[in-house]
Amino acid sequence: MNRPAPVETLDRAALLAELSEADDEALRLAVQAARAVQQTRHGFYFLHHFFEEGRDLSDPRRPVVTLPVTPWLMNPGGMVHGGVTAFLCDNAMGMASALEKGRPGVTLEMSVRYHKPGRGERLIATGELVHAGSLLNSARCEVRDEHGTLIASASGTFYHRR
Amino acid sequence: MNRPAPVETLDRAALLAELSEADDEALRLAVQAARAVQQTRHGFYFLHHFFEEGRDLSDPRRPVVTLPVTPWLMNPGGMVHGGVTAFLCDNAMGMASALEKGRPGVTLEMSVRYHKPGRGERLIATGELVHAGSLLNSARCEVRDEHGTLIASASGTFYHRR
Amino acid sequence: MNRPAPVETLDRAALLAELSEADDEALRLAVQAARAVQQTRHGFYFLHHFFEEGRDLSDPRRPVVTLPVTPWLMNPGGMVHGGVTAFLCDNAMGMASALEKGRPGVTLEMSVRYHKPGRGERLIATGELVHAGSLLNSARCEVRDEHGTLIASASGTFYHRR
Amino acid sequence: MNRPAPVETLDRAALLAELSEADDEALRLAVQAARAVQQTRHGFYFLHHFFEEGRDLSDPRRPVVTLPVTPWLMNPGGMVHGGVTAFLCDNAMGMASALEKGRPGVTLEMSVRYHKPGRGERLIATGELVHAGSLLNSARCEVRDEHGTLIASASGTFYHRR
Repeated sequence: MNRPAPVETLDRAALLAELSEADDEALRLAVQAARAVQQTRHGFYFLHHFFEEGRDLSDPRRPVVTLPVTPWLMNPGGMVHGGVTAFLCDNAMGMASALEKGRPGVTLEMSVRYHKPGRGERLIATGELVHAGSLLNSARCEVRDEHGTLIASASGTFYHRR
Repeated sequence: MNRPAPVETLDRAALLAELSEADDEALRLAVQAARAVQQTRHGFYFLHHFFEEGRDLSDPRRPVVTLPVTPWLMNPGGMVHGGVTAFLCDNAMGMASALEKGRPGVTLEMSVRYHKPGRGERLIATGELVHAGSLLNSARCEVRDEHGTLIASASGTFYHRR
Repeated sequence: MNRPAPVETLDRAALLAELSEADDEALRLAVQAARAVQQTRHGFYFLHHFFEEGRDLSDPRRPVVTLPVTPWLMNPGGMVHGGVTAFLCDNAMGMASALEKGRPGVTLEMSVRYHKPGRGERLIATGELVHAGSLLNSARCEVRDEHGTLIASASGTFYHRR
Repeated sequence: MNRPAPVETLDRAALLAELSEADDEALRLAVQAARAVQQTRHGFYFLHHFFEEGRDLSDPRRPVVTLPVTPWLMNPGGMVHGGVTAFLCDNAMGMASALEKGRPGVTLEMSVRYHKPGRGERLIATGELVHAGSLLNSARCEVRDEHGTLIASASGTFYHRR
């Protein structure tokens, strides 16, 4: 079990001293994390802010969720981690489903197909409703990079309590 | 587009001053992020460290990947974000596939089914190989909480270049 | 559109004359079809009988559905058509789900992974419940040939009206 | 094990006598089966003919596969068997993939979502390529009835040997 040690202390002076010795990249990400925690208090959820996810709902039938590609989202192979891409797909499809129903739902199942390694500047996921039922919606999405290359596609089922 | 501002400056003094005014939770997560960046330099990848993912490979036929459940992994509904669960599934299945082949592969596709909201202390994903081919492996996994409740199950296909 | 002409006449004498000139294989399959139609009147549904599907429910937690492999189930590549394998998976998983609920359900979604070409004497699908919810069940199945070789595996979600 | 008895004899006179006593529906389906066997000798595969599947490849980027809905394709619930719908999806997607590659492939995996019960006169599946790789193609399809109602949608991965 190779878990890093948890941040075990609340000795603020010690934590700040540790941060003052972090290198530039680590310090930047520390600030990004701290800001995301604070944004979470009056906004979405932490990972939305921490990943600096963008949303464009100007066409409610095709909601767009965007993720800047950073080294922090990569897997050891140097491409965006498939789980991060799945996260993005879940958001774009869940958004398409929620916009149709007028309220959020929960993901019942989703399948993701990976076509190309996720690299470049950002991933752009466009969700679309496939079928609207009384309780269950079906959605799909495509993930492209900033050049329009198809990175992944996904389909899923969403449950919306009445 | 409701993206937070990026960390735009490298003025270390300003960043440290900002962190010194962050509340306790934000400061802790800042340190966690900084540590994960530094661990990434001689270890796995950032999210593995940042999510404090644990791995137990003592039974190589059933690799176990564990995620402590924190508020930072939640969606707005107060349960672990489905994308995070998918991330965990990808890791447990990819590990099962890599252990059989003796080298890492890439995820071609995966499907995840969500059975119960992810809550509690931690998510424990157990991967298992379903079929080993010459280039393509098939794996599955189950995600349970610390009480053994089934949270999600997944299946996937992994490509291992020769 | 390369559809064969439908059986347009009810001139029984003409139809019987046509059958009397069919070759042996065609005549055998004609009889198999006629018998399956008649079995359908007081039994399951046509394809169950026509495909000569067998069911073994002696272990209700692992229902087994069996399909004799015949040339009539093949695709042009000389292996069992993937749609036939999917049919078998749907039956084995639907059975596992129905046995838990005590009543039939409908398939909401299913995913099938094909590991080896389906050949040999018969395909044996073993279903298993993964999760029982109040309305939705999740099941999986494995399809093996008579030597135990894994041909396909599947997962699916089933809806059971209260 | 409730399998019907196989057609065990090749006594043509006995088989023809049995058919002469079959009711009209059974006789019609017998002829349909015999014709499909004979068509198989110089063209596609049995189930394609027996199900009276139609193909429209006039737009090679959106191949259409059609299935007349008959009582013989139903499940006990009186709707087209989900396995039959999956069969149709496999065909439409496999066709989209084969048309891009110029040669047939094999299905690696497919997922099908069922939106509405399949009823009516016919099911019309339209395939579409999602991604073309060197060995692996990704396709999707939609299944509609003759009124345009969406019955099912599917996605899949197809392998084309070089």
